[in-house]
Amino acid sequence: MGFAELWESLLTVGGDAAAGYRRFTWNDAELECRAWFRREAAARDLAVEEDRNGNLYAWWSPGGAAGRAVLTGSHFDSVPGGGAFDGPLGIVSAFAALDLLRERGFRPSRPVGIAAFAEEEGARFGVACLGSRLLSGEIDAERARGLTDAGGITFAEAAAAHGLDPALLGRDDERLGRIGCFVELHVEQGRALDVPVGVASAIWPHGRWRLDFHGHGDHAGTTRLADRRDPMLPFAHAVIAAREAAERHGTRATVGKVEVEPGGVNVIASRVTAWLDARGARDESVRETVADVRRTAEETAEGHGVGFALREESYTAVVDFNTALRDRLAAALGGVPVLPTGAGHDAGILSAHLPTAMLFVRNPTGVSHAPAEHAEPGDCLAGVEALATVLAELAG
Amino acid sequence: MGFAELWESLLTVGGDAAAGYRRFTWNDAELECRAWFRREAAARDLAVEEDRNGNLYAWWSPGGAAGRAVLTGSHFDSVPGGGAFDGPLGIVSAFAALDLLRERGFRPSRPVGIAAFAEEEGARFGVACLGSRLLSGEIDAERARGLTDAGGITFAEAAAAHGLDPALLGRDDERLGRIGCFVELHVEQGRALDVPVGVASAIWPHGRWRLDFHGHGDHAGTTRLADRRDPMLPFAHAVIAAREAAERHGTRATVGKVEVEPGGVNVIASRVTAWLDARGARDESVRETVADVRRTAEETAEGHGVGFALREESYTAVVDFNTALRDRLAAALGGVPVLPTGAGHDAGILSAHLPTAMLFVRNPTGVSHAPAEHAEPGDCLAGVEALATVLAELAG
Repeated sequence: MGFAELWESLLTVGGDAAAGYRRFTWNDAELECRAWFRREAAARDLAVEEDRNGNLYAWWSPGGAAGRAVLTGSHFDSVPGGGAFDGPLGIVSAFAALDLLRERGFRPSRPVGIAAFAEEEGARFGVACLGSRLLSGEIDAERARGLTDAGGITFAEAAAAHGLDPALLGRDDERLGRIGCFVELHVEQGRALDVPVGVASAIWPHGRWRLDFHGHGDHAGTTRLADRRDPMLPFAHAVIAAREAAERHGTRATVGKVEVEPGGVNVIASRVTAWLDARGARDESVRETVADVRRTAEETAEGHGVGFALREESYTAVVDFNTALRDRLAAALGGVPVLPTGAGHDAGILSAHLPTAMLFVRNPTGVSHAPAEHAEPGDCLAGVEALATVLAELAG
Repeated sequence: MGFAELWESLLTVGGDAAAGYRRFTWNDAELECRAWFRREAAARDLAVEEDRNGNLYAWWSPGGAAGRAVLTGSHFDSVPGGGAFDGPLGIVSAFAALDLLRERGFRPSRPVGIAAFAEEEGARFGVACLGSRLLSGEIDAERARGLTDAGGITFAEAAAAHGLDPALLGRDDERLGRIGCFVELHVEQGRALDVPVGVASAIWPHGRWRLDFHGHGDHAGTTRLADRRDPMLPFAHAVIAAREAAERHGTRATVGKVEVEPGGVNVIASRVTAWLDARGARDESVRETVADVRRTAEETAEGHGVGFALREESYTAVVDFNTALRDRLAAALGGVPVLPTGAGHDAGILSAHLPTAMLFVRNPTGVSHAPAEHAEPGDCLAGVEALATVLAELAG
């Protein structure tokens, strides 16, 4: 099947691009995507497996293929209101590249796999790349089991409801040992790529921090200003401090999620919880950004009689992709650009455990994590060609 | 039945005081309160009516009672996480005062009514005192019909589901004409009262304004600061501006509710909507407070490439309660303190249409709109005695 037809067939699964997707791990929309994956794998006689951490694999392992596998793929899950390309492009391109290779009579000398990793965005349980972190032991299984979604359901409960054994979540050396390398194709998420395809050099260090402001709920009309302990005020200072710190340190810092209790118009809030996303080219600059936000939040919280706590929910140090693999790919593709990214990926998590690489497909506007996220059809086809070239190079 | 027993019987209806109530107009909790009202009225042989705007009345009109009624009462609905006293104290005290009067052999010369007004807090449909505003024509019925709750249900739809005819919502002169005066007993919501009971002089002008910030959703990691249109930033500036303006103008200004779309940790928000509550002793100072917030929001929104709109959702000008009624009550109660309040009440809305007055019961901590809201049992009993005295004075 050609890329365009395959792409269209996934586009309407679990949402639509105009409204933005809400494909969260194991919700109806994401389960529909997983069913799509199994159908496409079956149509190609690929063996489907789900590992004990909820990651899906489709294996092409014809007679004679032996040794460690070449794995490609990405993730289905989206951020709230996400675009169509972030994640799914890598999976659809993988199936399309495999079709190309077969049409051309290519026979791999080692198994080729297509992966769909669970909870890459962390939109449901709060930790990005949770599936690959569990697989590689980059998160403690006990901590993962206790992560909760917005409805208070733990990851262990959700995994059990999905048919997994919560006791078996975690590092899976046997499975990792069967993978020789992982190449993830992904839409570029900025405007750094001015040709159809590029190769990743590095992933910026990035993380998420939870900010809790505990104040005192009271009547908005009758409580004197001097008697207030309003957590909304230090929260607002922290939002502004994040932007100022990012400008100062040359990083990126964003507050995109906030919860207010009780949330009444005529009620001073009793609690505000917000999340800070911070990234940058260097670990130190990210750490300095977060330290600045913490300092402002602490000082303004104290000034308003509000309790404050900051907790790191996840942090991924700088990832420099395997140099040999990166150079081999760039050469096989005729010297395409090599560029870093500010976005985290499963390929970044797995890079500490096996050689990983990434192919980026050009993003004309740089928009991502939003319905307007886009890649031109011609660039997507170039991505599929590039991935086929790379798979032939690595599995030939 | 004594006050304490009656109070206890309502305390567990539709929630509990420790966790804070979520009694919103016509939700299960508030409907349970209405059922309690009907039971207590039936137990006293009081005739219950619901008017065409969803307000409840229980009438004590023994043979010989004639002329315009003396109405007392308050409301059942709460803010999110509200306390036990705000509203219900006035209704429970009304039944208890009526019991006292009957025990003492008092026979009213005019009908005495107990009212439970709908949607006083505006917690479900966003406009405070909606029931009394509709009754008195202080809100356009068409506008009221179109108000929506958090689930997108219109007030018209909710009213119809409750058995009201949406076409009949609105000003009810016939009913208003049958009421001679309204006296609302309410827990005081600050710490301005240092004896058990006081009489209200005025309600500060107060209102609610909706602030909409329209930005551009994008990836938190890859979008350059210069390319962002992040609505969270001007929102944060508006929060701080509200507090500073309140300090400058001697008013009170609060942002206690905010909604963020799409609300992902790694997504720059596309939209932030917040609500401003502002009050003060003078109309001009409240207007100046809101103008200052608007100016800061406009300027910072423009600086961040974010669209901004401010809309007044409700505004109530200063209410000076009927002087003659106020002085008569204060005298009947032996010269209790007369004091203003920053909180809005149905008695304030109705004051433009008939003589109204309020009795306040002391609040030892000043906390209101929160689970810690409290009045001492002895002060509540003093409130019941005072209300009985006032009803005897007015209906004797």
